[in-house]
Amino acid sequence: MKTDIQIAQECKMEEITSIAERYGIDKEYLEAYGKYKAKVNDSLYESLKDKKDGKLVLVTAINPTPAGEGKTTTTIGLAQALNLLNKKTFAALREPSLGPCMGIKGGAAGGGYAQVVPMEDINLHFTGDLHAMTCAHNLLSAMIDNHLQQGNELNINPTKIMWKRALDMNDRALRNIVVGLGGSSEGVPREDGFMITVASEVMAIVCLSENITDLKQRLGNIIIGYNYSNEAVYARDLNAHGAMAALLKEAVKPNLVQTLEHTPAFVHGGLFANIAHGCNSVKATKLALKLADIVVTEAGFGADLGAQKFFDIKCRKAGLKPDAVVLVATIRALKYNGGVPKDALSTENVEAVKAGFVNLQKHIENLQKYKVPVVVALNSFTLDTPAEIAFVKSKCEEMGADFAESKVWESGGNGGLALAEKLLETLDNKKSDFTLLYPDDMPVEKKIETVCKEIYGAKSIIISQKAKTKLRQVKKLRLENLPVCIAKTQYSLSDDPKLLGRPEGFDVTIKDINISNGAGFIVALAGDIMTMPGLPKIPAANTIDIDENGNISGLF
Amino acid sequence: MKTDIQIAQECKMEEITSIAERYGIDKEYLEAYGKYKAKVNDSLYESLKDKKDGKLVLVTAINPTPAGEGKTTTTIGLAQALNLLNKKTFAALREPSLGPCMGIKGGAAGGGYAQVVPMEDINLHFTGDLHAMTCAHNLLSAMIDNHLQQGNELNINPTKIMWKRALDMNDRALRNIVVGLGGSSEGVPREDGFMITVASEVMAIVCLSENITDLKQRLGNIIIGYNYSNEAVYARDLNAHGAMAALLKEAVKPNLVQTLEHTPAFVHGGLFANIAHGCNSVKATKLALKLADIVVTEAGFGADLGAQKFFDIKCRKAGLKPDAVVLVATIRALKYNGGVPKDALSTENVEAVKAGFVNLQKHIENLQKYKVPVVVALNSFTLDTPAEIAFVKSKCEEMGADFAESKVWESGGNGGLALAEKLLETLDNKKSDFTLLYPDDMPVEKKIETVCKEIYGAKSIIISQKAKTKLRQVKKLRLENLPVCIAKTQYSLSDDPKLLGRPEGFDVTIKDINISNGAGFIVALAGDIMTMPGLPKIPAANTIDIDENGNISGLF
Repeated sequence: MKTDIQIAQECKMEEITSIAERYGIDKEYLEAYGKYKAKVNDSLYESLKDKKDGKLVLVTAINPTPAGEGKTTTTIGLAQALNLLNKKTFAALREPSLGPCMGIKGGAAGGGYAQVVPMEDINLHFTGDLHAMTCAHNLLSAMIDNHLQQGNELNINPTKIMWKRALDMNDRALRNIVVGLGGSSEGVPREDGFMITVASEVMAIVCLSENITDLKQRLGNIIIGYNYSNEAVYARDLNAHGAMAALLKEAVKPNLVQTLEHTPAFVHGGLFANIAHGCNSVKATKLALKLADIVVTEAGFGADLGAQKFFDIKCRKAGLKPDAVVLVATIRALKYNGGVPKDALSTENVEAVKAGFVNLQKHIENLQKYKVPVVVALNSFTLDTPAEIAFVKSKCEEMGADFAESKVWESGGNGGLALAEKLLETLDNKKSDFTLLYPDDMPVEKKIETVCKEIYGAKSIIISQKAKTKLRQVKKLRLENLPVCIAKTQYSLSDDPKLLGRPEGFDVTIKDINISNGAGFIVALAGDIMTMPGLPKIPAANTIDIDENGNISGLF
Repeated sequence: MKTDIQIAQECKMEEITSIAERYGIDKEYLEAYGKYKAKVNDSLYESLKDKKDGKLVLVTAINPTPAGEGKTTTTIGLAQALNLLNKKTFAALREPSLGPCMGIKGGAAGGGYAQVVPMEDINLHFTGDLHAMTCAHNLLSAMIDNHLQQGNELNINPTKIMWKRALDMNDRALRNIVVGLGGSSEGVPREDGFMITVASEVMAIVCLSENITDLKQRLGNIIIGYNYSNEAVYARDLNAHGAMAALLKEAVKPNLVQTLEHTPAFVHGGLFANIAHGCNSVKATKLALKLADIVVTEAGFGADLGAQKFFDIKCRKAGLKPDAVVLVATIRALKYNGGVPKDALSTENVEAVKAGFVNLQKHIENLQKYKVPVVVALNSFTLDTPAEIAFVKSKCEEMGADFAESKVWESGGNGGLALAEKLLETLDNKKSDFTLLYPDDMPVEKKIETVCKEIYGAKSIIISQKAKTKLRQVKKLRLENLPVCIAKTQYSLSDDPKLLGRPEGFDVTIKDINISNGAGFIVALAGDIMTMPGLPKIPAANTIDIDENGNISGLF
């Protein structure tokens, strides 16, 4: 069995300029980063803006389990398969964070025969987007502490600074720190902490910005904390937004790469799907829609988080209208949801599949609330049995969802032909009547309640005292019109990671509220959300290596 | 008067592939980063390694003063002028750090009509080298703290961890911090701090590495701290060096750009000239020597720090033999050294020039100890008078140094023709008999004493108790063969920044010793060396901006 990196390194890549040419992108719009990566200039979108958009397809999944679902892999494989069927297709993906590559999770460039390449570059520094975001984030941090040091004219309350520092690294020792020690010329001592860069509001802003003017506006709108009169202090009060935007000049441009089968892919922007909306950049998606007949994109975690935010944040803000949703599930993950322990997933167990199907069922129901046609993609494993598959197929079709098996991990585009054909049939025969879950003018608390009840299936919500105070702040700041981004565990539809399947009768507790005013959403924290991961006992970094010819091994 | 960024933005750059072609670099060796920047693959050096080297010219300066000397500007302008004289010339420069661009110092891409371009890119993220170093540095940091957290098998003493964290930002609040707070699952609490990335040993290692095998070896050799038995713990004990090297895969490749007049320049590597050796990368210099007849390079701060380290660390390690040294001075800086206050430098004052000449004189004497021909470049200002200039010229020539005026800031290559012609004459007529200041097998303490006495002009050295203990450690670790890198103030030949001119009869106090075992030198700290700068009251970042077309302003 070849590893992902072996498969990726064996791929004979096409020069990126040639892929671009096939999709009608003239060289003048490209900024090459080596032979196989390029950034695309904003002027390309300008030149195409009157062109009709292609169809937009979201790939999402049931709740993640240790069994693995293969959402990114399915996204890439489906794009490859559509190309084999002569549909001009673009993949629009999130870009990986370097931190987890050094830890346990590995990269995020797909797997098996459905990957984007050059895999090592994409997983490590890529075109430097995350580094630019780290810089922009930390410039604001440095300017805040410098302001305290230089007299604190804005009267910032050092105990109410919400803006932390950021690093693209898994480093638990930086979660809670004290900065500014060492005496009066070394800063003002205060509690602080680092988050991983993908969790930074800067990432969310880059992902949602439509142009540089918009970017600057959003950066200026960041609420960094509060002054002693409890009034919000903005990044623009520190004059930080211009320099931050300058640092992000290139990071806002979509990155063009290819899949193993030379299907073009924008891999651009990518953030946490709990404290942020977990999608690739609006710019990349919109540009791909101008360049292709079909754009296949993805959103983080399961559909309760990823798809809900894709619809109610990204599509709402960017005016996007998805034409279909592909919902990825595996027999193994359904069994796991049906109560089978991790080490017994390889035995046929139709009863467990039935029991676990409720999770998939709830996600289908949820997606149907947005009035977008649903295709369930069963990501096949060798040990899945015909009886298990037949059960899932019939139940999905009973619910009005289409169904297809997918084998892209082992066979690339060819393994995705059935899914691609089913999707094309769906796109031809079923019309999307995309509808948002709630209107802008619903009060924030009511929006939270709507998502919790309608999507998670909660009985009711409990708002903590702390969160209530923050909700009053939201009202005071006249931000009631913003959508909500609920940060909760990805492992359950509920806020309890242990409740698998389709939990019912539960409450969701909102512990705290954060205001991502630059990004333009209100984060409701339903649980303790870790924004700085740690390394495991034996980190992946231990086995990553490079030989004298510059070939990297051990990345996965 | 146009600003540097205006001049840079008006430059009609040549495509980097075309510049490369003119210098015999085939496209196959280039990895383009946009149209005007490229990394050069190691295989190019391999293909040229039997070719004869060009001449190597170092540009250095007297001690820096608030009046400014213009060392980088002279380096670039001289390379431009040599090209006007049809000499195939390459500039080999250090790459700027982003931190100071946001603070007070501004960028480091030259000035006036002697700049490397694209200026904004070079000053901001460039090709991501510093970001890669930041990552490699912080990966090791994270692995150290993770090791403490996961049981500390190596018995690392948390109070004796020497390896800090790094960020390419001016951020004084990060100088002294406490990490690992928040309870037992959030790390082991300990004192720590951040340094700016250019001060990281990773930067020194990248600058000195000849190939990936060498790079990995050096990274593995980093001493991260000591265990409870006071034995050194190495990066290789944590298995960090492979992943660190993988992260530095691209960062070790020289970056090719151009000057305003399309002279090729490698801008690669660049570090503090106090705690490290302050030069560009060995790889870039060696490759440039294969590609050009003359390579003009520079070293940080004044000749007492920059040139001394260029010779005794870089040239020693890399086997380089410089053919000439250009020593930059200004009338204004000589007057300042002669006791004239900053606001009275514009009035003719031959006596002050005479009084201040002793600084230049000492640097000439020092350079002559290395048996390399010296050309003094007087960087002209409009208000310099003929009498002042005549005095400096005659004194330099009396000492056996050549002399020429340079006006590259206002006139580019044309303003450097006199200097270029003088340099060519020197290269033709005077043979370099380059000699190191001390042999490898001299004890470290004696090496320190030799530099302090011979180069700084000290009467004697005082070694603190702390430094003595560390010197015993150096002996115990059998590192006596390493060269020394003295970290002292750049403003004086002595260790007291207030002593201008040519101080005499002073002692140098060595407060502490650091072992840069990966880089391969022993750092002797003669003063409190700041490795994390702060921002000024009104940081440059306040005025940096970007317009809707992506044009950056306010960088200087």
